[in-house]
Amino acid sequence: MSSNEPPLGNALIGQSGGPTCVINQSLVGVIETCVGSDRVKNVYGALHGIQGVLEDNLIDLGRESKETLEAVAKTPCAALRSVRMKPTREQCEEALRAFQKNDIRYFFYVGGNDSAETAHILNEVAVAQNYDVRLFHVPKTIDNDLRVTDHCPGYGSAAKFVASAFMGDNQDNRSLNGIKIDVVMGRHAGWLTAASLLAREHEDDGPHLIYVPERAFDLDRFIGDVEDMHSKHGRCLVAVSEGIHGPNGELIVPSKEVDSHGNAQLSGSGALGDFLAAEIKTRLGSKLRVRADTFGYLQRSFAGYYSEVDAQEAREVGRRAARAATTGEVQHGSVYIARHDDAGKYRASFELTELKNVAKETRDMEEGFLRGDNDIDPSFLDYVRPLVGDLCSAARLSDFPR
Amino acid sequence: MSSNEPPLGNALIGQSGGPTCVINQSLVGVIETCVGSDRVKNVYGALHGIQGVLEDNLIDLGRESKETLEAVAKTPCAALRSVRMKPTREQCEEALRAFQKNDIRYFFYVGGNDSAETAHILNEVAVAQNYDVRLFHVPKTIDNDLRVTDHCPGYGSAAKFVASAFMGDNQDNRSLNGIKIDVVMGRHAGWLTAASLLAREHEDDGPHLIYVPERAFDLDRFIGDVEDMHSKHGRCLVAVSEGIHGPNGELIVPSKEVDSHGNAQLSGSGALGDFLAAEIKTRLGSKLRVRADTFGYLQRSFAGYYSEVDAQEAREVGRRAARAATTGEVQHGSVYIARHDDAGKYRASFELTELKNVAKETRDMEEGFLRGDNDIDPSFLDYVRPLVGDLCSAARLSDFPR
Repeated sequence: MSSNEPPLGNALIGQSGGPTCVINQSLVGVIETCVGSDRVKNVYGALHGIQGVLEDNLIDLGRESKETLEAVAKTPCAALRSVRMKPTREQCEEALRAFQKNDIRYFFYVGGNDSAETAHILNEVAVAQNYDVRLFHVPKTIDNDLRVTDHCPGYGSAAKFVASAFMGDNQDNRSLNGIKIDVVMGRHAGWLTAASLLAREHEDDGPHLIYVPERAFDLDRFIGDVEDMHSKHGRCLVAVSEGIHGPNGELIVPSKEVDSHGNAQLSGSGALGDFLAAEIKTRLGSKLRVRADTFGYLQRSFAGYYSEVDAQEAREVGRRAARAATTGEVQHGSVYIARHDDAGKYRASFELTELKNVAKETRDMEEGFLRGDNDIDPSFLDYVRPLVGDLCSAARLSDFPR
Repeated sequence: MSSNEPPLGNALIGQSGGPTCVINQSLVGVIETCVGSDRVKNVYGALHGIQGVLEDNLIDLGRESKETLEAVAKTPCAALRSVRMKPTREQCEEALRAFQKNDIRYFFYVGGNDSAETAHILNEVAVAQNYDVRLFHVPKTIDNDLRVTDHCPGYGSAAKFVASAFMGDNQDNRSLNGIKIDVVMGRHAGWLTAASLLAREHEDDGPHLIYVPERAFDLDRFIGDVEDMHSKHGRCLVAVSEGIHGPNGELIVPSKEVDSHGNAQLSGSGALGDFLAAEIKTRLGSKLRVRADTFGYLQRSFAGYYSEVDAQEAREVGRRAARAATTGEVQHGSVYIARHDDAGKYRASFELTELKNVAKETRDMEEGFLRGDNDIDPSFLDYVRPLVGDLCSAARLSDFPR
């Protein structure tokens, strides 16, 4: 990455893909840094991401009060509204013409790997046409599956939600015994599902089984696992990633709907959980109390419950991108988070990488974090705990004999 | 209700039915008050409610440290473990023999209307056999459908969860437009579903439609309502109670499973939401983005997120029951919460009523809280706000034109 004099002009921000609880922290981080830069004349927002660019649907973010911005930062889901759209090269050329028309010299795209890919193509188009616009990807995803970065803004808050949900549901399952399946978001990777491990405080606590997409899912083995755990504990709480699939990538419950990124619909339906619950009843006995919950959109949007660390980092990632752009540190890129150990204390730093390094592909969990094909290794707790921050603790009675 | 000298003997506590996030506050309220009473020799707990009484599965609660009790109070779901069991009169006679054997003179049953009914039958059996045991029902239910009381311990926390979930999901739906159905707990009454109204801050905020069991559900009308709202707002967020049914009480998606109380399984499955989503697609167009989430057990068990007012009241309800019992104020009864208006400020007082007044039947929402057949009246907000306490606010950008 070479650097050169940053141009004078307007900045534009867009948000894309599924929301997170802290995605607006990044938005506000970009806005406040751009507003404070002498290279930026106006700070605009594109409504519904790249679609807003193509439709010239822009708003003026520079006029927002500090109070509004701080309140928006604490509000979940894309304040600029989002979009699921993978623009073609022709559309990217059209977007570039919109940039030129509006004197856009800085473009920040808050999103996942598909958004990084969009920024990457936009950059190629801009370079080809010799138009100086600084293109930056600002990472976010509850799935935590972006490459290069240690973890993704949005993940810590979603992981905190999942951990708290399992902590409560473990108490529920212990209180009224039965077999309970909870389906957690995560199309390609098990990072979010793995966060359920935070709920396991006592030896017999659930989740007793954890299934992630990194391991091929086998229904017969699953039923056997559930039967074993139910025999052992008199109950069984299971964490299942929505993205689990067979050895050839085939989904357990085929989806009828595919989005413009070619992704099959997984969330927004209870189908997988209900299917697994029905299979357990059919095979292990219809008198068993078997229930399934699919956590759904709450994981990415629940208002008022988030990780403080995650919120701070999401803000800083936005600031870092805007600073890198407006100081000319690099001409394009994506921000990533590096993890440091300061005498046993977690610390993050915010670094830059090329757009192509983050675009397209996703990142699975590391092998060392997996334990067999139905559990997560305790070493994962060291990874996830600092990102989630303070969690309540589930207390038990001592059950003193009378 | 007459009063007489409270006997000297042991106290026993049980928890029954579906959990709440503050059910252990009531448990600890009873324990601490009993421990402090000179009429109580030992404080025991029955594991899994009346089942623990019948199986002589008792623990000693008097030996728990104050630290443990305070930690347990903050932990969701029955720390004594729960049960769904409606004992027969014969089983109640057996339970009374267990009381006599263990010198139980005070029995506190934390639960809903079925638990009040159990306490009521136990009381009849005790009176018939001339055994002096003071039987008390300590109310709890997220459904808020007990009679006599202004509201039920457990409801405020569940309502806070539902409100926060809808607040976030409204942002999600505004961010990525579509039709979204969220299914909320509540078998007989719409109290919890109605709490979704708290998420409606701006005129165009969802939930745009709210369906409760108090109104007969008509699928054709529902589809028409969704179509209208979708045309108006370009999106539609719908709150649906799991207990909605047709004019003759028939469920929309028949359940295969029935519990020992004769209740059909509603929760722990995404069937209703998925059915409604599929109907919308079939009738309004398969290209529509339609999603459904079923909030499930999180509403009653999510750890670390509750209403402070609810937690305090749940504690006080337990204390009040134990105080009434051990001072001989009444010989049996249930505690209810009365609402007072202290110069515009909400205040609760804790009163006593006969067991039979709370047993068996449930309480629907008042007509005045319903608005047509698909919405809740804003007057409901005055009812529910003090019970939920502080909620975060969902902020928007001003969308200043460029």
